[in-house]
Order: sequence, then structure tokens, then C-alpha cells
Amino acid sequence: MTVQMDIAALHDFIEREFAQARGYVVDRVAPMEITVRLPVNDKHLRPGGTVSGPTMFALADVAVYLNLLAMIGPKALAVTTSCSLDFMRKPKAGVDLVAECRLLKLGRVLAVGDVMMFSQGDPAPVARATMTYSIPPER
Amino acid sequence: MTVQMDIAALHDFIEREFAQARGYVVDRVAPMEITVRLPVNDKHLRPGGTVSGPTMFALADVAVYLNLLAMIGPKALAVTTSCSLDFMRKPKAGVDLVAECRLLKLGRVLAVGDVMMFSQGDPAPVARATMTYSIPPER
Amino acid sequence: MTVQMDIAALHDFIEREFAQARGYVVDRVAPMEITVRLPVNDKHLRPGGTVSGPTMFALADVAVYLNLLAMIGPKALAVTTSCSLDFMRKPKAGVDLVAECRLLKLGRVLAVGDVMMFSQGDPAPVARATMTYSIPPER
Amino acid sequence: MTVQMDIAALHDFIEREFAQARGYVVDRVAPMEITVRLPVNDKHLRPGGTVSGPTMFALADVAVYLNLLAMIGPKALAVTTSCSLDFMRKPKAGVDLVAECRLLKLGRVLAVGDVMMFSQGDPAPVARATMTYSIPPER
Repeated sequence: MTVQMDIAALHDFIEREFAQARGYVVDRVAPMEITVRLPVNDKHLRPGGTVSGPTMFALADVAVYLNLLAMIGPKALAVTTSCSLDFMRKPKAGVDLVAECRLLKLGRVLAVGDVMMFSQGDPAPVARATMTYSIPPER
Repeated sequence: MTVQMDIAALHDFIEREFAQARGYVVDRVAPMEITVRLPVNDKHLRPGGTVSGPTMFALADVAVYLNLLAMIGPKALAVTTSCSLDFMRKPKAGVDLVAECRLLKLGRVLAVGDVMMFSQGDPAPVARATMTYSIPPER
Repeated sequence: MTVQMDIAALHDFIEREFAQARGYVVDRVAPMEITVRLPVNDKHLRPGGTVSGPTMFALADVAVYLNLLAMIGPKALAVTTSCSLDFMRKPKAGVDLVAECRLLKLGRVLAVGDVMMFSQGDPAPVARATMTYSIPPER
Repeated sequence: MTVQMDIAALHDFIEREFAQARGYVVDRVAPMEITVRLPVNDKHLRPGGTVSGPTMFALADVAVYLNLLAMIGPKALAVTTSCSLDFMRKPKAGVDLVAECRLLKLGRVLAVGDVMMFSQGDPAPVARATMTYSIPPER
């Protein structure tokens, strides 16, 4: 499958129509894959300096959503139906959080994305997630 | 097992030591069970008026954490190690989100909490979550 | 919603068309709920006398499938798309395993079933599962 | 981390002490990684010729367990505490099922393994799983 939206098109879409993804940076797009980075700031941190769980959930969710957009274009709004997350290590303080996402399935009604999250520059994953999206039928 | 912290003690703990749980209200505590409510406001909403996924993740996470505190007291900090979530329906706009949590297991090193989430006043669940916490050994 | 197939109809369907569910017993059917029991025998056990993980997965999967059948009748074949499982306690040896299932959602294309599993007669759950099924469109 | 048990040692262990893993073949062992193959036969199939869900669950579970054994040796018995599975495609009939497993975490009390499953020779994954194991303390 070919990519429908490149990095510039995705950033443009975020700016115009996807307010909740502002602050995320798309670093790479390839067929069925995307890398999304969160420049971590104080509002993502817990006491102790670690990135919060909801911040990691949100990063994984945005990464899979942007991966879908990149592959099918800005059509009808896909909806998260289920997810699983595993938290393996504390993210490093003061370091961007990077999500490497891969679409394992892009079907007519369901898409499944797999995400591995890293503190930038450290190869040991801090968390993983799988997100299932339901793709509404086109009118 | 008996409850170690009641509603007042939990609210007091949130106020003094658990900043990220401010804004949540504990409505009920019972052995191995808790009900936590999120008074929904604009910052929890997505365009279209629905409560965001990260907001539901955060509510489930806080509910299980407070359930643990209620049962074992404010000891060493438990850490979320994994979770699964299923999103069944759109939460209603302008309505509080209620998490009914039950600890399925409270072991020496692992605890498992099951959460059903509702738009207040509507019996159809909007989401469910299971959260596993790792309980660090006491020094 | 009303039940389309009662216990007798489900047992009859298992006997005629659902070979992999033979050996399971439907103990109760209600709107959106079902109780399915597995009479445990040697082939379900691990060394040490406990029921195996795949046996618990299979029980949860069959329970949700039968719950779907009970509600929508023996139409097009639903397919498991994802599941999450948590194992809380060792099932007791020599005791039937009981799955109490509830459909949290029965949509046009997706159904979500929640299952709590018990060693018969013991109120502490041994495992829980959530299963998502994709319901193919009718021709 | 270095591998404690190679392919021959794992096959020997399966033969002598791990009856429920008989029939599985370890194709590759590397630090924190393993490839385990299931030669599919009639007892793994559903009507229609596809591999059953419990068969895929069992393959993922065995793969993570053998990966743990390979890394820590045949010590105290680790126990599955939770898992998530996503089923993406029907496995091909008459083709071996291959699990490529990677340990994302190997802690003192918890290990997390990620598994991608394939019909041998086809690069599109049929299923993925994440398994969490609890490692009991050594006496």
C-alpha cells in the first residue's frame, strides 16, 4: 500500500483539524509505519519526574491514528475500540518520548496498530501498546 | 479484608500528596471496591463533545490506585505494569464519568483491578478497563 | 433485547454444528448474559493438577460465542478479533470451571463480552477475560 | 544478557520435564529472543481448516515461557499473569505456525514477552500476543 499523506500533509492536518494532536511531531512516514515524537514538558510529568501513564496512552493513540490517516487519507473519523498497554520501564526525565508504530492490519472495518515507545536515544522500550480502531463505512 | 482509608482519608491524601488525582471524587469505598467520579469539564473533551480516551484511561488508573490505597494504606508507591481497555460507547457530553472499580486480586507483589465506566445516570457502560499494579516490597 | 436461543437450542446447536464446543455445558441464559461450565478432566490439566491457560482461554472464547449465538441466533459466523486475559489464582483441581459472561456491547459489526471464571463453589475469581468479536455483514 | 539454554538444551528440557510443550520446535535462540514453530496437525484445526484460537494462545504462551527458560535457566516455575492477543488474519491451512518472540522486559519479579505469529512463509502476521509472567522468588 502507498502512503496517502506525507509528514508535511500530516502536520498541516494536525494544525487545521486535529487540535488534540498539537504538540506531537511526525518524524517518519513509510508504508504502514510511522514514528511520532512527543517533546516532553512539565505537564506530561508525574511527581518524581517520570512521564505519566495517560501521556503514554495518548501518544500511542495519536501515533496509530496518524498512521491510519497517512495510509487512508483524512476520511471518516476512525474510533479507538480497544487497546492493551504494558509499561516496562520508567521513561527518562527531560527526554522526548518516541513512538514507533506499525499497522499490523488495515482492513475494511478494523485496523490494528502496534506501538513501541522509547525515551529518545535509549534502545530499551519504556512501554508498548496495541490499539484497535474501527473504521466507519463511507457514506 | 478491611478498608484502611475511608473517603475522607482518601480525599485528604489526594489533597496533600497525590496532585494528579485532584479533581476526582471518591463516592464510595467498600472492601476491595471503590467508586470514583470525574466531574467532566472542557479540558477532558474532544471536538464533538465526547470525553477523550486518555481521560478514560486516567480515570481507570486513578480508580485502581485509590482502591489499592484504601485497602493497604499510603505505603510504598504501586506502579501500573499493564492494562487493557475496551471502549464501547461514546460518553455523554456534560455528564460526570463514573468508574466502578473492584480489586480482583490483592497479592503480595501484584494487584489486579477491574473497572467499568459509565456516564452518570446511564446504565450502559461506556468503557471497561483492567489494570495490573506491581506492589514494591517494603523496605 | 430478547434471547433468541435458550439452553436446549444452544446444546442442540453445539451437538449438530459446533464440534469444538462439545464438552461445555450451558447452565444459564439471560438477556446479554450466559453461564458456561467446563467439566474439567485430565486433558485440561497441567502437571501439578491445575487447569491450563489454553483451557481457560478456550472456555472464555466459547462462552462469549455462545452468548452471541443466544442473542442473535445461528447466523453468519462471528470471529474473535482480540482478547485480554488476567490470571488471578490457580483453579482448584478436580472442580468444574465456570464462566460467567456478559455482553457489554452488541453492535452491528462488533461485540464485546466480559467473562469472569471461577472454580465451581469458590467465589474468588481464578481468571477474567474480555473478548471482542467481529460480526460479518449478512449477505 | 547471555543465553543460558540453547536449542538442544531446550528440546531436552521439553522432552524430560515440560510435557505440554511437546510438539513445539525451537528454531532459533538469541539473547532475549526465540523462534518457536508449531507443526500444525488436525487437532489444531477448526472446521473450515483454520488454526484455532486456543492453539495460537498456547503457542504464544509456550514461546514466552521457553524464551524465559533460555535466558534464566530451568529455575523456579514462572506463571502467566496476563496476556493480550489480537487476531489479524486466518492462518493458512496445512502450514506450520511460527511464533517470533522477544522479551521486552526481564525483571526480578516480572517478565514481558511480545510475540508475532505467522503462517510459515507468509510475511503478513496472523496474530500478535503479549504475555506477562510472574517470576517467583528463589528460595
